[in-house]
Amino acid sequence: MKKISCPGFKAAGIAAGLKKNGKKDLGLILSEVPATVAGVFTQNKIKAAPVLIDIERIKQGLCQAVVVNSGNANCCTGKQGIHDAKAMAGYTASALGISENHVLVASTGVIGEPLPTEKIKEATPGLVKALGSEGFYDLARAIMTTDTVPKIVSTQGDIEGKTFTITGIAKGSGMICPSMATMLCFICTDLKASPDFLHKALYNATERSFNRITIDGDMSTNDSVIIMANGVSKAVVQSSTQNHSFQNALDKVMISLAKKIVKDGEGATKMVEIAVKGALTDNDAYKVAMTVANSNLVKTAFFGEDANWGRILGAVGKANVPVEPDRIDLFFDDVLMVKNSTGCGKTAEAKATNVLKQPEFTVLIDLHQGNGFSSVFTCDFSIDYIKINADYRS
Amino acid sequence: MKKISCPGFKAAGIAAGLKKNGKKDLGLILSEVPATVAGVFTQNKIKAAPVLIDIERIKQGLCQAVVVNSGNANCCTGKQGIHDAKAMAGYTASALGISENHVLVASTGVIGEPLPTEKIKEATPGLVKALGSEGFYDLARAIMTTDTVPKIVSTQGDIEGKTFTITGIAKGSGMICPSMATMLCFICTDLKASPDFLHKALYNATERSFNRITIDGDMSTNDSVIIMANGVSKAVVQSSTQNHSFQNALDKVMISLAKKIVKDGEGATKMVEIAVKGALTDNDAYKVAMTVANSNLVKTAFFGEDANWGRILGAVGKANVPVEPDRIDLFFDDVLMVKNSTGCGKTAEAKATNVLKQPEFTVLIDLHQGNGFSSVFTCDFSIDYIKINADYRS
Repeated sequence: MKKISCPGFKAAGIAAGLKKNGKKDLGLILSEVPATVAGVFTQNKIKAAPVLIDIERIKQGLCQAVVVNSGNANCCTGKQGIHDAKAMAGYTASALGISENHVLVASTGVIGEPLPTEKIKEATPGLVKALGSEGFYDLARAIMTTDTVPKIVSTQGDIEGKTFTITGIAKGSGMICPSMATMLCFICTDLKASPDFLHKALYNATERSFNRITIDGDMSTNDSVIIMANGVSKAVVQSSTQNHSFQNALDKVMISLAKKIVKDGEGATKMVEIAVKGALTDNDAYKVAMTVANSNLVKTAFFGEDANWGRILGAVGKANVPVEPDRIDLFFDDVLMVKNSTGCGKTAEAKATNVLKQPEFTVLIDLHQGNGFSSVFTCDFSIDYIKINADYRS
Repeated sequence: MKKISCPGFKAAGIAAGLKKNGKKDLGLILSEVPATVAGVFTQNKIKAAPVLIDIERIKQGLCQAVVVNSGNANCCTGKQGIHDAKAMAGYTASALGISENHVLVASTGVIGEPLPTEKIKEATPGLVKALGSEGFYDLARAIMTTDTVPKIVSTQGDIEGKTFTITGIAKGSGMICPSMATMLCFICTDLKASPDFLHKALYNATERSFNRITIDGDMSTNDSVIIMANGVSKAVVQSSTQNHSFQNALDKVMISLAKKIVKDGEGATKMVEIAVKGALTDNDAYKVAMTVANSNLVKTAFFGEDANWGRILGAVGKANVPVEPDRIDLFFDDVLMVKNSTGCGKTAEAKATNVLKQPEFTVLIDLHQGNGFSSVFTCDFSIDYIKINADYRS
């Protein structure tokens, strides 16, 4: 397996006994020097304790470590949950000999059960000992819940001949799902950049990546995307052209991670891009795309490899944006299946059915209203999704 | 089986060859005299041809017959679809010797395929011949798609000692789902009432019944609720007290039909009431209830009989209404499972799990913000939902 690292960062992932199956469940990222930091977090009004703490600590603009556990979300755990999340950060700070305020914390797993802090306390020295510059795979494994594969992407760019690295790790399997498949993403870079710059770049990249995927339309209490920039490379962002170079690389990493999440969606067998053009505005196009992407009926039809375009038009119609009901065209990849809201017949349908048999394809919807465009990624909805989610806590 | 009728109405249901399996697929309701009429229809921007025609014809305030088919939705069928829907009404009008404008039409089934009008034309004389005062069960069967049971409810009330009857027939299995499980409901009453009165009463009853149920959050292109009042009883609505008597009876019929639809939800094994109190407004309470009721994660947990209250709180938090994240209480029937957003422990959970093993139960969420209340009905989300919807057209 290709070794992935990021200059000036170390990572680790170990088993601390939080998962019943004995798999890795405690992870750590350490920057050799304090790094600038930014984050974007769940919009859910119910936020897990670690999210509440990170939102406060990130205001300082500096951070040196992130400690993360799977197996327990530390959410809906009241004041004890806040206390426990701080304790978890404190164990790491003590073991590393750094300020507790420079440690962020993240959790993913079942909601409403107390965090087993004793297990975490006992495991922390071993976690610190396991830190290594090639520990990112172990970290990626330690944050998995129903994920079936670790998700890690690294790329390099350059600014005035100086190379920088971006390495991202993510987990998520129901895109955003309250009790189990929280989306977490940690990005490390050796660029030198201000917290404000980082925040803007992270926000932009999130809009282009994690906010364009959906698995089940649910929104987690724990979703967190955190970026740390430690400046150990010589690359510095100072002009808008340089911004562009870094933003492109960050977009690439985060879009790649987002697609990995959709492909690994709970029970998913297919990844489908839903592209909408010809809307009055980009936002209208986004609403239509997300409504189609979240329709259980559309997603079950994808699972059944059934070119049931009527369900897609039905979903378009309920998106609550202006459409001309008789002017919609629809393509499966390059197969024109619907022209002016009317089916193109059996030959087109046979071709479309072949498109649906592929593991990845695009549905393009043209509303013929204006120039608004958006595209999102979704997966099919299979029997295994139900099995995974009906049985999760047992 | 109990014989159900409504004075002055006849109904029929026969097999016209629209369904591949040879089951009943063409139905008719006839009032002996022209009846006042009102209707509520899908809010989907893509509306099926019969819906577009009915919306126009209902403006006259009078109607004498409704002809309905299953097996084909006559939606996304362009100008031909409008032509075909009118033709279908025309065959009925000719066979009955009444004005075509007094015939409404409804369709449910696959979207985007041309309506086989020749089959309907051939079958219409037989359909008219089959009309009988106890034909409502045959009608209820003829409008089924993935429904597993016919849905029919009848009640009586009185106004100043004069009895009136309300008989309702409905179908729907995905609540509102574009290509197959349209919700259709036809209500017959022998009351005498104006179209305006009927519309208001129907609107109120719809808000209290069909707008309070959800199976999969999808919205059909064909949903229609139509009421006909033929005035053959001596009961007349003239005062607000009398209104109240009729409204109560109509609510009762439509709520009962709505619950039958949820219980027969595609693959459903449980019916669950989601009640929300303590919201700032009734509308906020409704939004929270519907968000919980539509969460795939909540619904799969119901199927798994898992008292996974964290998923419910997660869904509350994403409903985009004001909540105090630390003040939410949650009951499964009378078992207090969550107090101040924190779980009440293993004993409560064991009791809650027993509640979830029942075929019907209530989840009560108290937001402690104000006096807003709402409750809705949903079903669990099972493996069979996926099977039904992945395989539907094959």
